[in-house]
Amino acid sequence: MHYPSAFSPVTNKMKSSLIRELVASTKNIPDLISFAGGFPAPATFPKEELAKIFQEVVSTEGSDVLQYGASEGDSILKRELLKWEGLELDPGQMLTTVGATNGLYLYGRALIEPGDVVLCEAPTFLGTLVVFDALEADIHSIPIDDEGIRMELLQAKVEELRRANKRIKFIYVIPDFHNPGGISYSLERRRELLAYCIEQNIAIVEDNPYSRLRFSGEALPTFLRLAQQEFDGSDVVTEVVSFSKILGPGLRVAYVKGNRELITKMVSWQQKVNITPDCVSQRVVSRFLEKGLMNPHISRICDHYRPYLNQMLQQLQLNMPDSVTWTKPEGGIFLWLTLPEGMNADELFVKARDKKVSFIPGSKFYPEGQEKFNTLRLNYTFSTMEQIETGVQRLASLIK
Amino acid sequence: MHYPSAFSPVTNKMKSSLIRELVASTKNIPDLISFAGGFPAPATFPKEELAKIFQEVVSTEGSDVLQYGASEGDSILKRELLKWEGLELDPGQMLTTVGATNGLYLYGRALIEPGDVVLCEAPTFLGTLVVFDALEADIHSIPIDDEGIRMELLQAKVEELRRANKRIKFIYVIPDFHNPGGISYSLERRRELLAYCIEQNIAIVEDNPYSRLRFSGEALPTFLRLAQQEFDGSDVVTEVVSFSKILGPGLRVAYVKGNRELITKMVSWQQKVNITPDCVSQRVVSRFLEKGLMNPHISRICDHYRPYLNQMLQQLQLNMPDSVTWTKPEGGIFLWLTLPEGMNADELFVKARDKKVSFIPGSKFYPEGQEKFNTLRLNYTFSTMEQIETGVQRLASLIK
Repeated sequence: MHYPSAFSPVTNKMKSSLIRELVASTKNIPDLISFAGGFPAPATFPKEELAKIFQEVVSTEGSDVLQYGASEGDSILKRELLKWEGLELDPGQMLTTVGATNGLYLYGRALIEPGDVVLCEAPTFLGTLVVFDALEADIHSIPIDDEGIRMELLQAKVEELRRANKRIKFIYVIPDFHNPGGISYSLERRRELLAYCIEQNIAIVEDNPYSRLRFSGEALPTFLRLAQQEFDGSDVVTEVVSFSKILGPGLRVAYVKGNRELITKMVSWQQKVNITPDCVSQRVVSRFLEKGLMNPHISRICDHYRPYLNQMLQQLQLNMPDSVTWTKPEGGIFLWLTLPEGMNADELFVKARDKKVSFIPGSKFYPEGQEKFNTLRLNYTFSTMEQIETGVQRLASLIK
Repeated sequence: MHYPSAFSPVTNKMKSSLIRELVASTKNIPDLISFAGGFPAPATFPKEELAKIFQEVVSTEGSDVLQYGASEGDSILKRELLKWEGLELDPGQMLTTVGATNGLYLYGRALIEPGDVVLCEAPTFLGTLVVFDALEADIHSIPIDDEGIRMELLQAKVEELRRANKRIKFIYVIPDFHNPGGISYSLERRRELLAYCIEQNIAIVEDNPYSRLRFSGEALPTFLRLAQQEFDGSDVVTEVVSFSKILGPGLRVAYVKGNRELITKMVSWQQKVNITPDCVSQRVVSRFLEKGLMNPHISRICDHYRPYLNQMLQQLQLNMPDSVTWTKPEGGIFLWLTLPEGMNADELFVKARDKKVSFIPGSKFYPEGQEKFNTLRLNYTFSTMEQIETGVQRLASLIK
């Protein structure tokens, strides 16, 4: 059997994650200091609490959670999530998914016809771009500034695409502690984007893995909440929330909230893709929430990460030349660093690897052909204080 | 936002599981005797062993299993699965999936271009048909007899499709304890189908949820094993094995074995669909296997189910008129019953529901337009001995 000749055309041309390949290229380097990944610190995993709850759930609710579950998600988990969020939503406006990627895949699957336009921020999370790309979307990116997507460029892009008779389906945004951009949308920009998308009939999908990892400052309402509160309960927004950064990515549990008809179609796709997320893990998350463990746990994670962010900001300040700038986030797990115009972070990556320090070149966070090369992403949650100091010093000396 | 107008065409025309709707239509009937579902008996779930292993795994391996895992699956689970199966396979020829449906979805995603022909048995498992249908396959079914698919009808169908210039991608088969057909392929028929598909360059995907649920008789080699042993290690077969019936469907863990290039493409799709199955559950299954608990547990399940199968066979024998026939399987969880020609099981379903007994009409297990109406599927693993007696009596009196 000659399989390659049997693969569907989209399978043959599909992109894999360049980030995965970059990380793999540094895998066997001993003593490497890595600012590359997006992994949470294992020290933040609530191992003992979860071990106890897993034992309890399987022992006392095993007949239920080891059985087939509902494709729309565990009803007990949905109840606890709505309580936790304090949202007035019907469970039919929510589904649970096998992590946020599964939620975004189902969303794309429900909406994208090959050739449809998907808008995104530049830069944006590559892991999501490859999902929409595999669904044969025509992806267009719009630059962000410190307050979010640049509205005048978005408007110009939408007009240009509409003149070309393109069908624009939705815009993908990461409003809080942007990956990789390290910014959060201002309240004003949130309102502007919402008003514009409602007017233009462009759906919004809001990726929210980080909003609860806030170490300082005031939280702003999510797009979903703002649409409910200030835009007559508009259902233009679908929000995808992940537990990967606040509980542990090995538990493949996330949830999606949005328009009921859309959620119904996503559930119908889930029946074909997975039947349901893992039922034991869903119930464990329910009980973790019900016991009131989630908020104190998130506070502990923030307390854990805060000094690492401060250390990285301080080391950058101490070591980088004036020509280099970077974001100063109040949470999340990434910084975005801008090198002098003309300097190439892809080349810097190779040199840095030789000096045993790594990061992700910014070019990897743009759709193909739309790359910016003088930027890079730094993660600070997976290194020690000493590694952050040494790693930033090494990078700074290479840049100088 | 008007979502329905934004849905992709395939989403709008996608079928949902009719079985789900049928089961839902009987949901609120008190004292219903249901032979409809495909649920394993909760009494067979190894709750206490699993509860203990969940606790151990999360407590001692939490830093690993709560972290992101590999898209191709947990390497420890793959090692234990290969040991358990006693197969000479490289881990690169295997991936773990979020249940068997996810494995079949990824397989279809890697191979099906809209309009490609997928062949299947008639009858076959509807849950898989809706997957291939959602991927826009052109599905054609070929009748089975007591030994498996009817080769002369398969050959005629393939010739007819090839004359019409159709591209045939693969055939979907359930060789052991067929759902819903209740038969197992004979060794001879296995060899014939394998030889034919290799000659015709038609891939085979083998769905294997039941082969280990054998209560009597001798096991035959799976298609995958037979291809390795008797057909020069041919990689024409991809086998999907589920833990749903031997451990618990709430744990969304299954695995797929096949050609390395195909598996690589399926892993690449998994990165877009789910990233990875639940890492905690994968490791729990690994430890369950490693501790040697699997085979004794499966023996206990078989001991549990055997009397229920015998009870159903005996009650059918005692109560059904001579014009009704049924399969006599040596394992699995279903029987297939054939009513006199001209009797309609869809109509019988409605009458039976009024008498508080349910089943799935056979017509639901055929691709659209290819239905046979005088058949029905009976499950015997989710009822008590008394319910089987009463339920079969009620059905028999309706048929008479």
